[in-house]
Amino acid sequence: MSFLRRQESLKMELTTVQKALEIIQNQTEKFGVEEIKFLKSDGRILKENIIADRSFPPFNRVSMDGIAIAAEAFNKGQREFKTEGIQPAGSPQLTMQNSNNCIEVMTGAMLPKNTDVVIQYELIDIENGIAKLQVDTVKKFQNVHLKGLDREKGDVLINENTLITAAEIGVLATVGKSKVKVAKQPKVMIVSTGNELVGVSKTPEPFQIRRSNVFTLVSLLKKLNIQAETAHILDDKEVLQNKINSFLNDFDVLIFSGAVSKGKFDFIPEVLNNLGVEKLFHKVKQRPGKPFWFGKKGSKTVFAFPGNPVSTFVSCLKYFHTWYYKSMGLSSENKQQAILTEDYFFKPNLTYFLQVKLHQENGQVLATPVTGKGSGDLANLVDSDAFLELPDDRTNFTKGEVFPLIKYR
Amino acid sequence: MSFLRRQESLKMELTTVQKALEIIQNQTEKFGVEEIKFLKSDGRILKENIIADRSFPPFNRVSMDGIAIAAEAFNKGQREFKTEGIQPAGSPQLTMQNSNNCIEVMTGAMLPKNTDVVIQYELIDIENGIAKLQVDTVKKFQNVHLKGLDREKGDVLINENTLITAAEIGVLATVGKSKVKVAKQPKVMIVSTGNELVGVSKTPEPFQIRRSNVFTLVSLLKKLNIQAETAHILDDKEVLQNKINSFLNDFDVLIFSGAVSKGKFDFIPEVLNNLGVEKLFHKVKQRPGKPFWFGKKGSKTVFAFPGNPVSTFVSCLKYFHTWYYKSMGLSSENKQQAILTEDYFFKPNLTYFLQVKLHQENGQVLATPVTGKGSGDLANLVDSDAFLELPDDRTNFTKGEVFPLIKYR
Repeated sequence: MSFLRRQESLKMELTTVQKALEIIQNQTEKFGVEEIKFLKSDGRILKENIIADRSFPPFNRVSMDGIAIAAEAFNKGQREFKTEGIQPAGSPQLTMQNSNNCIEVMTGAMLPKNTDVVIQYELIDIENGIAKLQVDTVKKFQNVHLKGLDREKGDVLINENTLITAAEIGVLATVGKSKVKVAKQPKVMIVSTGNELVGVSKTPEPFQIRRSNVFTLVSLLKKLNIQAETAHILDDKEVLQNKINSFLNDFDVLIFSGAVSKGKFDFIPEVLNNLGVEKLFHKVKQRPGKPFWFGKKGSKTVFAFPGNPVSTFVSCLKYFHTWYYKSMGLSSENKQQAILTEDYFFKPNLTYFLQVKLHQENGQVLATPVTGKGSGDLANLVDSDAFLELPDDRTNFTKGEVFPLIKYR
Repeated sequence: MSFLRRQESLKMELTTVQKALEIIQNQTEKFGVEEIKFLKSDGRILKENIIADRSFPPFNRVSMDGIAIAAEAFNKGQREFKTEGIQPAGSPQLTMQNSNNCIEVMTGAMLPKNTDVVIQYELIDIENGIAKLQVDTVKKFQNVHLKGLDREKGDVLINENTLITAAEIGVLATVGKSKVKVAKQPKVMIVSTGNELVGVSKTPEPFQIRRSNVFTLVSLLKKLNIQAETAHILDDKEVLQNKINSFLNDFDVLIFSGAVSKGKFDFIPEVLNNLGVEKLFHKVKQRPGKPFWFGKKGSKTVFAFPGNPVSTFVSCLKYFHTWYYKSMGLSSENKQQAILTEDYFFKPNLTYFLQVKLHQENGQVLATPVTGKGSGDLANLVDSDAFLELPDDRTNFTKGEVFPLIKYR
């Protein structure tokens, strides 16, 4: 094949970022449902509707400390009320015996029978068991949170497929869902390859570096409440094939970092092919992360990211996170965006994931490029907050333009 | 005291939100430093500078699979190079013996001695051990990530007092920090009070409700990587006093929910006073959450939030989170903001924490009010994303205005 034809075919085989994401979103999986303790369900995805087991509030609830009276007595001109008793929160409902009296009521208590107005302590004087009012008018059910005002018994309070956060935890507790149905998490194995990699606690030889991508990935998956496992395999085709075969049996998802490009020891695509993993694309029109390989074997999903740290990082956020959210039943559409604060030039005909620092002004999200020295600059990630996704159809990006944003802080 | 004078003194004793926050920020504490495994340090605050133990990259690193040649040979017109060997990643540096030859090089490998240009496989043909080039010019050190280009040995890669996320985890791994110094977390006890409260798995009597605030608080603190403990105490002054006394001994922070207002069983301020906890303010010019009580006893910090669910929720985010960040050495200034999408009216002379739903348009963060039925509507939190902080000095808030934002999703 001539050089020119090869260049041509090279262009042809690049998958656009949009197409790659579309393919991935068509390859979601379900991992079933499990019931867990509600207090452990933070960050998980709800797999049942949460229904109000009673009205919200469940009774006419006093919302100020003070006295409860009958509006009718007040409206007849009465301004002094004999206290007949106290209605604390957490006690059975009292009944006011004499409609000209009052009952002292506490926030959270049931409104006593035969009363329909609460007047806060700030507006009364109580002396010798007589409450004197300092008000000219009252409104029926003032300072009363009426039964069922917020929600009625049987209302759906939280819909299935909601990401559980503190707000949902509170509602789950309120309706007595001590256990709750959530989506099971995929079992994920993160594999690094490459003879140049040594362990974190090792001192590398001059030609070696320490493993880091797998740990970055573990951390990025922890944000999704996935406890991933990790492994390292040397660049040996037979060993790779055996280990990956067993990982395909034991895990739902394999994520690789490295060995997917054109190098003589980039065995991953070949080995995956040998093991019957179908390639759905290889090489994406993006920087960093061009050699990204994605495939499936039955229900098993394989993300093989290139080995450079920044490409692994952004690819995990862009592709794996999207796949995960969609698999879980959440919206996978990224609606985050930011405004570029300076002109930017990027020549290659690739989608560029530009590292940016974010700040807010006038309610706008502003993204300032953090220019690293290359796509492999891991330390640069520390100084940035997000990636701005610059499209592949042009080279000049202008201050003030809005682009999709992938936040990682 | 007359009614009018009491009203006056009531106004006087309300602390503004700004003042309350200022007082709280002056009451931060240090909890020391501990060394933990780097892979467990997500979400913790770094308490040492992280230094590059070598240059980044540590050697002239090949960044494309292909061949390495000497630029000089190319510039003399040579276009065919005999391959002298292969330089894989993770192998000691080769030396090219003949300056007219080439060495095949893999991404991540050391650039062989006597070579200074890498040409990717896409631009060459290799036949019978001879690489033929399809290029007209080369640039010295093209496709080579030069030693120390990103960072020099000794550079600070991550500053002390940084919140550790996936990006930092990668850097920690790279420089061999298998253990890392982080700020110790405060020991926090979250206490609910109130006879109306029953456990989550109980069926409440008509006048009871289930405990929920403490679990919401647990979840909000989990976001800060704090594993808080919880307790429930009935409205009995003596029991309260005994238990709170022992909590003051065993914990750094107590957070209460409820029993801080004017009710006959709102014993918390009195009991805290009896136990020598100094009140720094009681009652804040805000809704929800007006009866908020804050105090200190030595190094122990006490946040006593009112019992309604939404006020507990927003107060934790506004006050406890700020106190925590500042205590840990992070910036505690909330720089988030959003644009109100519709006119809003709020009459009381109080800072109002308005529940809002967020979305983005044109790079702007837009906040749409989610109007609940009162400050106690927990279920409403599920439908919102954040609180917009409307100042206390006016009643009309106009579409398009920008206000501080407290996000919880």
